[in-house]
Amino acid sequence: MEQKIPYKIYLSEEELPKQWYNVRADMKIKPAPLLNPATNQPVTLEELSQIFCTELAKQELDNDNAYITIPEEIQNFYKMYRPAPLVRAYFLEKALGTPAKIYYKFEGNNTSGSHKLNSSIAQAYYAKKQGLKGVTTETGAGQWGTALAMACSYFDLDCKVFMVKCSYEQKPFRREVMRTYGANVTPSPSETTEVGRKILEEFPGTSGSLGCAISEAVECAVTNEGYRYVLGSVLSQVLLHQSIIGLETMTACDKYGIQPDIIIGCAGGGSNLGGLISPFMGRKLRGEADYQFIAVEPASCPSLTRGKYVYDFCDTGKVCPLSKMYTLGSGFIPSPNHAGGLRYHGMSSVLSELYDEGLMEARSVEQTAVFEAATKFARIEGTLPAPESSHAIRVAIDEALKCKETGEEKTILFGLTGTGYFDMVAYQKFNDNLMSDYIPTDEELAKGFANLPNV
Amino acid sequence: MEQKIPYKIYLSEEELPKQWYNVRADMKIKPAPLLNPATNQPVTLEELSQIFCTELAKQELDNDNAYITIPEEIQNFYKMYRPAPLVRAYFLEKALGTPAKIYYKFEGNNTSGSHKLNSSIAQAYYAKKQGLKGVTTETGAGQWGTALAMACSYFDLDCKVFMVKCSYEQKPFRREVMRTYGANVTPSPSETTEVGRKILEEFPGTSGSLGCAISEAVECAVTNEGYRYVLGSVLSQVLLHQSIIGLETMTACDKYGIQPDIIIGCAGGGSNLGGLISPFMGRKLRGEADYQFIAVEPASCPSLTRGKYVYDFCDTGKVCPLSKMYTLGSGFIPSPNHAGGLRYHGMSSVLSELYDEGLMEARSVEQTAVFEAATKFARIEGTLPAPESSHAIRVAIDEALKCKETGEEKTILFGLTGTGYFDMVAYQKFNDNLMSDYIPTDEELAKGFANLPNV
Repeated sequence: MEQKIPYKIYLSEEELPKQWYNVRADMKIKPAPLLNPATNQPVTLEELSQIFCTELAKQELDNDNAYITIPEEIQNFYKMYRPAPLVRAYFLEKALGTPAKIYYKFEGNNTSGSHKLNSSIAQAYYAKKQGLKGVTTETGAGQWGTALAMACSYFDLDCKVFMVKCSYEQKPFRREVMRTYGANVTPSPSETTEVGRKILEEFPGTSGSLGCAISEAVECAVTNEGYRYVLGSVLSQVLLHQSIIGLETMTACDKYGIQPDIIIGCAGGGSNLGGLISPFMGRKLRGEADYQFIAVEPASCPSLTRGKYVYDFCDTGKVCPLSKMYTLGSGFIPSPNHAGGLRYHGMSSVLSELYDEGLMEARSVEQTAVFEAATKFARIEGTLPAPESSHAIRVAIDEALKCKETGEEKTILFGLTGTGYFDMVAYQKFNDNLMSDYIPTDEELAKGFANLPNV
Repeated sequence: MEQKIPYKIYLSEEELPKQWYNVRADMKIKPAPLLNPATNQPVTLEELSQIFCTELAKQELDNDNAYITIPEEIQNFYKMYRPAPLVRAYFLEKALGTPAKIYYKFEGNNTSGSHKLNSSIAQAYYAKKQGLKGVTTETGAGQWGTALAMACSYFDLDCKVFMVKCSYEQKPFRREVMRTYGANVTPSPSETTEVGRKILEEFPGTSGSLGCAISEAVECAVTNEGYRYVLGSVLSQVLLHQSIIGLETMTACDKYGIQPDIIIGCAGGGSNLGGLISPFMGRKLRGEADYQFIAVEPASCPSLTRGKYVYDFCDTGKVCPLSKMYTLGSGFIPSPNHAGGLRYHGMSSVLSELYDEGLMEARSVEQTAVFEAATKFARIEGTLPAPESSHAIRVAIDEALKCKETGEEKTILFGLTGTGYFDMVAYQKFNDNLMSDYIPTDEELAKGFANLPNV
């Protein structure tokens, strides 16, 4: 007999995961190794330790250990804002008139407004433990930058954030939150780095891009004694830290006998999706259970659904290791019309491999449909979702409506990665009927592919 | 033996309160009745029902029933965002080096960003039940307007919000959240009401005030068929609904053997403070326990600490019933320099009476000290607090530091009413060292007192 499922499931502190789960350990085909861009050879721990903290570099290269103990100080910090609730979307189910059961894991109950804090605190911890002075990073919308600022403030580390210039100007409040947590925020491209000056010279007046901000942050880390670079998505170490999302979700599901049929997550670089699905994917890989996984990306930045699975640069300045991933080319920048985040040109190498093997599906959705779902969700479930998260909401609603047609009582689980409180410019556009859709043509995508490296 | 207290205490759904608590029932001296401004006689249920929904008018006048059942639909809505966690501020205690134990009840985990949703959903419910088309209200910073927009969206009621003009212009994002929930937002004073036109004529270019927006909202309600006015603070019915805060807190405290010595809340109109302390005050009034209650208000709007306890108008247009309360006069507007909310000229009549009887203390604090506490709290406890809430943080920290001096192991409980995500203009001012303090002179206060009604 099915138990009565509470509206929100909060695990107790004792039930919180004490280890992260590394899905790579259960993958039969491992993600392709990162390559040194100078030699095209697999990057070594030593080389990677120039960019990342040593412990994080180890995690990045670790394809073998399935479980990695979460250091106690990180577990303590997690208690500040975790457990994140697993919510039964009773109100949404009723409003849709669907026989499907809908659940979402809500990661927005913290000041970064998203799941990003799960990895930033881990990365700051290892930096502190290594005796570093500080870390550098890039941020677009600002969720990652905020999360890192919070983590650095906690460990008393210096935090240098390169913020994509258009976001820096359009999102002064995000910038101010970072400053409140003591971070140093620079609009990118800037005059403070060589790569920034080069880009400014080549493209005067550019409003910046994530790839460009990454290059500046990496240069800043490697040229400043006692600094390392940290990144909020794409990397395998980030997926490892974010597995806390999936582990909590799985514990809650097991506790209440919830068996998801479909698991849906939005995908930019893959941090949330990878974190949410990892432990479930582990079960699938080990043959213990089966799930339908769906990655949802914007039609205007369709790396999985229209990209190529090849080695590519992770950044515009081409200073980072090469990664084999689904990519649109490191020069690809989504149309300025695109308001919904998830604008990175590539995808986590772990997720890329899983997708390539057919273990996960991908769908692309247009932004007006995404904001329509977002507004519906806000009004019915109360929480104003981040545009990024709303990609997953869109597909969850679509799947629930399919169940309404077929009468199937599927259990749908999706990741609600965060809140949209700092995205009201985009919502305003939608409220004023000024939002439109843009799907890049094959010719436009071909331009991005033209600059792929020869590996 | 003391139990191990989790970092966050979440009650289960079964433990959630099913009744609100009405502290007036336990008060030996009842708050003075509202008066009809035309006759100076106590307002009748019939008169009050012209402004408020009938059921809410009954609650407003009910000094006798200690417990009022929460309708099931409201209990269900509460499950969307409640229980609110009672958090043990372990990190703050450690950072302060205090022997005190600090707890806070955090009401910010919902899209309104504050406790305001507790009453807005109740008021919208009764409006819907009465078959109304919609409700009108005023909002300053926007938390109440957002909360009401969310509640009206849930019950499919029309929602007309008069937003103080300076906030409307300075907080476009708050406005946009309300619009996303389907509310109609008008900057106040406006040309849409008689009182608005009158005020605009008298003070062309005024940036508005809460008292003026109230007058417009009331006029809009009484001149539109099928509309009633609702208010987010000051009223006794609001304190009743907000008692959910205190009831949850008390249940959690009792469950874990936590015995607060000091209970602290910020006070503008009194909604949060009244809600938090009500059940504890009930115990004190019944002689079952004793607590030190501290209301914290801004030094720039010091209704309790420097106001008079007399009958006054609740609004600038003088259309509302008269209320006996601590007041600075209905014409009092805090210095434009004041950034921290809590700007209402009066105080809940319930809290005013309790304060007058010496059952509760009050302190006023200056805003730079408030933002200093806010920033400290954000960095140590993770959550970026609302400026309003930070008044309580300031005094909680002060009390904890006193304990450090004396060695007393007091248990300090405060209300963290909400988050500051829409208050980054104020934070920026503080971050840039551009914030200053302003304490009104006795002469300035005398001007406000000069316009008190003769009752």
